[in-house]
Amino acid sequence: MMDEDLENKSMRVVDYIMHYLVEKGSDSIFLLTGNGAMYINDAIAKYDQLTYYCARHEAAAPMMAESYARLTGKLGIVCVTSGPGATNAVSGLAEAWVDSAPILVLSGQSPTDQMPKEDSINKVRGFGTAGFDIVPVVESMTKYAVTIKDSSTVRYHLEKAFHAATTGRPGPVWIDLPMDIQYAEINPENLESFEPELDVLPTSDEIKDIFLLLKESKKPLILGGHGLRQSKSLDKFNKLINQLQVPVAFSRLGHDILPYSHNLNLGQVGRRGQRYSKELLASADLVLVLGCRLAAPLAGEGLEHFDKNSKIIMVDIDPAELEFHKERLDMKVCGDVNLFIDKFLADFKLSEMPDWSAWLKSCRVLKEQNPMLVEEKLLKPKDPIDLYYFMSSLDKSSDENNVMTTDAGSNYYVGGQVYHFEKNQREVTSGAYAAMGLSIPLAIGAAVACPKKQILAVTGDGSLELNIQELKTISYYGFNIKLFVINNGGYVSMRKWQDKFFDGRRIGSDDETGAEMLNLELVAKTFEIPYKCIRKSNEVNGSLKEIMASSGPVFIEVVCDSMQDIIQPYLETEISS
Amino acid sequence: MMDEDLENKSMRVVDYIMHYLVEKGSDSIFLLTGNGAMYINDAIAKYDQLTYYCARHEAAAPMMAESYARLTGKLGIVCVTSGPGATNAVSGLAEAWVDSAPILVLSGQSPTDQMPKEDSINKVRGFGTAGFDIVPVVESMTKYAVTIKDSSTVRYHLEKAFHAATTGRPGPVWIDLPMDIQYAEINPENLESFEPELDVLPTSDEIKDIFLLLKESKKPLILGGHGLRQSKSLDKFNKLINQLQVPVAFSRLGHDILPYSHNLNLGQVGRRGQRYSKELLASADLVLVLGCRLAAPLAGEGLEHFDKNSKIIMVDIDPAELEFHKERLDMKVCGDVNLFIDKFLADFKLSEMPDWSAWLKSCRVLKEQNPMLVEEKLLKPKDPIDLYYFMSSLDKSSDENNVMTTDAGSNYYVGGQVYHFEKNQREVTSGAYAAMGLSIPLAIGAAVACPKKQILAVTGDGSLELNIQELKTISYYGFNIKLFVINNGGYVSMRKWQDKFFDGRRIGSDDETGAEMLNLELVAKTFEIPYKCIRKSNEVNGSLKEIMASSGPVFIEVVCDSMQDIIQPYLETEISS
Repeated sequence: MMDEDLENKSMRVVDYIMHYLVEKGSDSIFLLTGNGAMYINDAIAKYDQLTYYCARHEAAAPMMAESYARLTGKLGIVCVTSGPGATNAVSGLAEAWVDSAPILVLSGQSPTDQMPKEDSINKVRGFGTAGFDIVPVVESMTKYAVTIKDSSTVRYHLEKAFHAATTGRPGPVWIDLPMDIQYAEINPENLESFEPELDVLPTSDEIKDIFLLLKESKKPLILGGHGLRQSKSLDKFNKLINQLQVPVAFSRLGHDILPYSHNLNLGQVGRRGQRYSKELLASADLVLVLGCRLAAPLAGEGLEHFDKNSKIIMVDIDPAELEFHKERLDMKVCGDVNLFIDKFLADFKLSEMPDWSAWLKSCRVLKEQNPMLVEEKLLKPKDPIDLYYFMSSLDKSSDENNVMTTDAGSNYYVGGQVYHFEKNQREVTSGAYAAMGLSIPLAIGAAVACPKKQILAVTGDGSLELNIQELKTISYYGFNIKLFVINNGGYVSMRKWQDKFFDGRRIGSDDETGAEMLNLELVAKTFEIPYKCIRKSNEVNGSLKEIMASSGPVFIEVVCDSMQDIIQPYLETEISS
Repeated sequence: MMDEDLENKSMRVVDYIMHYLVEKGSDSIFLLTGNGAMYINDAIAKYDQLTYYCARHEAAAPMMAESYARLTGKLGIVCVTSGPGATNAVSGLAEAWVDSAPILVLSGQSPTDQMPKEDSINKVRGFGTAGFDIVPVVESMTKYAVTIKDSSTVRYHLEKAFHAATTGRPGPVWIDLPMDIQYAEINPENLESFEPELDVLPTSDEIKDIFLLLKESKKPLILGGHGLRQSKSLDKFNKLINQLQVPVAFSRLGHDILPYSHNLNLGQVGRRGQRYSKELLASADLVLVLGCRLAAPLAGEGLEHFDKNSKIIMVDIDPAELEFHKERLDMKVCGDVNLFIDKFLADFKLSEMPDWSAWLKSCRVLKEQNPMLVEEKLLKPKDPIDLYYFMSSLDKSSDENNVMTTDAGSNYYVGGQVYHFEKNQREVTSGAYAAMGLSIPLAIGAAVACPKKQILAVTGDGSLELNIQELKTISYYGFNIKLFVINNGGYVSMRKWQDKFFDGRRIGSDDETGAEMLNLELVAKTFEIPYKCIRKSNEVNGSLKEIMASSGPVFIEVVCDSMQDIIQPYLETEISS
């Protein structure tokens, strides 16, 4: 279907693409301009309904778009130039792929007559001015990737790419546009369109089997992931668990779905989850996994974190994830979690379920007796600042007007352990990939997605450098981002494993071995963001209050313990109380 | 063959790899440490014969290794961690691929038992902790890429990768090492080794045909490229052209092979070459192309810059490049340029060639009458500083103790036009790919490759940001790099085309449209490099003298014209005199 504006109109391919994307609901685009994408750039410049944001490095743009997509539910869009512009974007693309973000990358390309012929046995390494065959590079990390070499196919490819990105398990798609295709005139109405295939639904038999297994279970646990939010199932999920009254636990990306205080919520579990993760996962006799890929950090290799006799049922839209765990799964159901919950609620009387209140109570006791923050740390904050104390204070200071982001490194793990999300805060972070430097572009994407919210971004002094150029993007646009930079002397996790496993043979992890950190106050000044510093535990809460009351960006150095321990449930010999 | 040290020894795979690489002549490695590569990191930390340099972003490491490889003739080595470490390196890898640099990237990977099975129909997007299947991503931009899943194959893969990187047309290779393979114990002597196939040589018939065509030619031109240096043919090439007494011209990467004043040298030609490029290329009735891929910026699309009746003979090691131009080439000879020149000089009496002195003289007249820098600009330097004046001054101030690097943008084009290399200077730059931010990592690689030389690196205020984090690498190691940052308000080339082709609809190219630049003095301070500024033309020479006499890194802001024109021979209506 074609909207009225486009009827019988001839227009440039690039103008048609922008028109289509706006029709589909997107209102923002992240880009770095370049000669090879000049007509795409121009269409963006011309088109008022699409606001563009200039990144300072192409690697950051897909991360911004990912965050935008995850918070708005809309397609995130990126535009890069040919050659280096395209290959630079690969870093950010990988994040969006692993974390299932629906984004579209539009790349410029040399004109078609300068590209190698399709049937070349040997491909040249480069062509045109900075032409580079990007599709083979991104093919394995996109749901659809195509170089459009015939302008009459643009509608088909665009519709197909949009469909691929936004349905099933979402993910990135890539459309590469040779220069002559960019400016080619088309009449979209006359072009072939794309007809999607119908989705596969969970069958009634599958759902009945799950119902019966659940009914037999004495200690069921529901494990929820990112798929719950992506399939827009949160209300139904709430209804399901409240009717069942079973304990639920979450993956890193499902972490902000329920407040931690919710009577059914056991929080984030796994190797870097709550202290009682090991005991909880091993206790359940049935685990119903909804929209969670059971990554190794959560479930162990070969799902070894679960009791070997427990039944594991996985409902997931991605057949690859089901196949990956097939040896251990008792049931694998391929389908949309939303449709699954719908059908489950409609087909069965949940009142037939046994009374799990004793099991639920034992889970709650586990939770109460094993807080992340033991009392003395909360009552008598110590110096240097403990990261658990700081991250917890940040969580407590925030509310529904905040979006939180974290980066690779210790803040990522600690955030996953102490953020409680009692006031409907949102978090955008990485599921497991966790590229260093991720937090800044995620924060920028969040600021674009939620212009009325305040973004609380945490990064480390090590990670900071990997997207340091985007600090200028923050100051240029005046985003309401409070960026907390954990100064722990950089690379604390690397020092830890080098000391532990390699007799203290350090490399690239401290001042002497190549990882000396920057003066953060100067960094803030250079990138024109007002600077604050939190040096002592007793300053934390007062400073947070003041910072969060201010408008516009602030860069806050938080001086923390350079040998911060991370609590690792699967390494602790016994659960501390 | 195995050297004595390794006989009958059991060792970790990672230790064997380092041992092998040192045996092959490499003495440096560029890396960013990470958990997924912890044993590789440890082997590097342990091994004294290999000096490691910590980059601040994985994207920059392959560029450093490329520069090291191009200047030393040795294999450049990079080590990155799994997942984001690996995908981050893709940007730099593309440069090394297009510009044929022999580098090896070693990446960490999740343990083999966490990786998807080879026969999986559907592949999961990620696995392990931050595991990611990198080989499909880099396959199309490497000469060899493999994940080693069986430690007994390590010797075979390593030898094969080394061979691929360093023979034929050089290029990057990639070895991905799962954690369990990294620490596996092997006895290298007992392992299968790799037997390379023999190289293809140009045949006697082919060489004879070239001889005969050349003999018939009245206006021959030899066009030399990067392949001359890579095949270590410079001495032979000199002998060849001196015996033939024909004019020679060069590609961007062949630019520093001969001093511009050499009586046979017409310098760099093409769309952004010498002013007389158009006339020269169109005048030749035969072009013998040696180790040059005839990129579009040099030779035009479909080699249209040459006269349509001229004979074009291309000698190249890469069959893909020959095939790419097959419709226009009169002869294509696949083989090593070094062996070709050898055989050519041995088989034929070059004294049989006709007298080309009149043709040569007409070329020289063309050269003399069309200098890049017209007299008045040299005699009366104007303000704001003209980039041609500055780059030329830099070239004149330098000598055989200098290595020059340039970045994407106007300095790249101008350097290609005015650098004369009269004193055996070397240049490391991009052939055509020219990723923004390239100059800094190239300079670092050059400083490691040539510790006794001074590196004169030029970058732009726009490009600077794309590898700004590596300024800290420069200051940390105290490299003797003089970094000239051209302040032209950033993105001058984009403003130019937006004004020219799109009615001045600017996007991401000036202060108002998202491309406001940083305060460069603060940048230098933050990254701890002494700062200087050159604001006026009459300060240029004095400042250069002072800067080049100093030791250690210096960051020099050069305030230039924000609307700098680039001389484009193929756009000029007539050759200016």
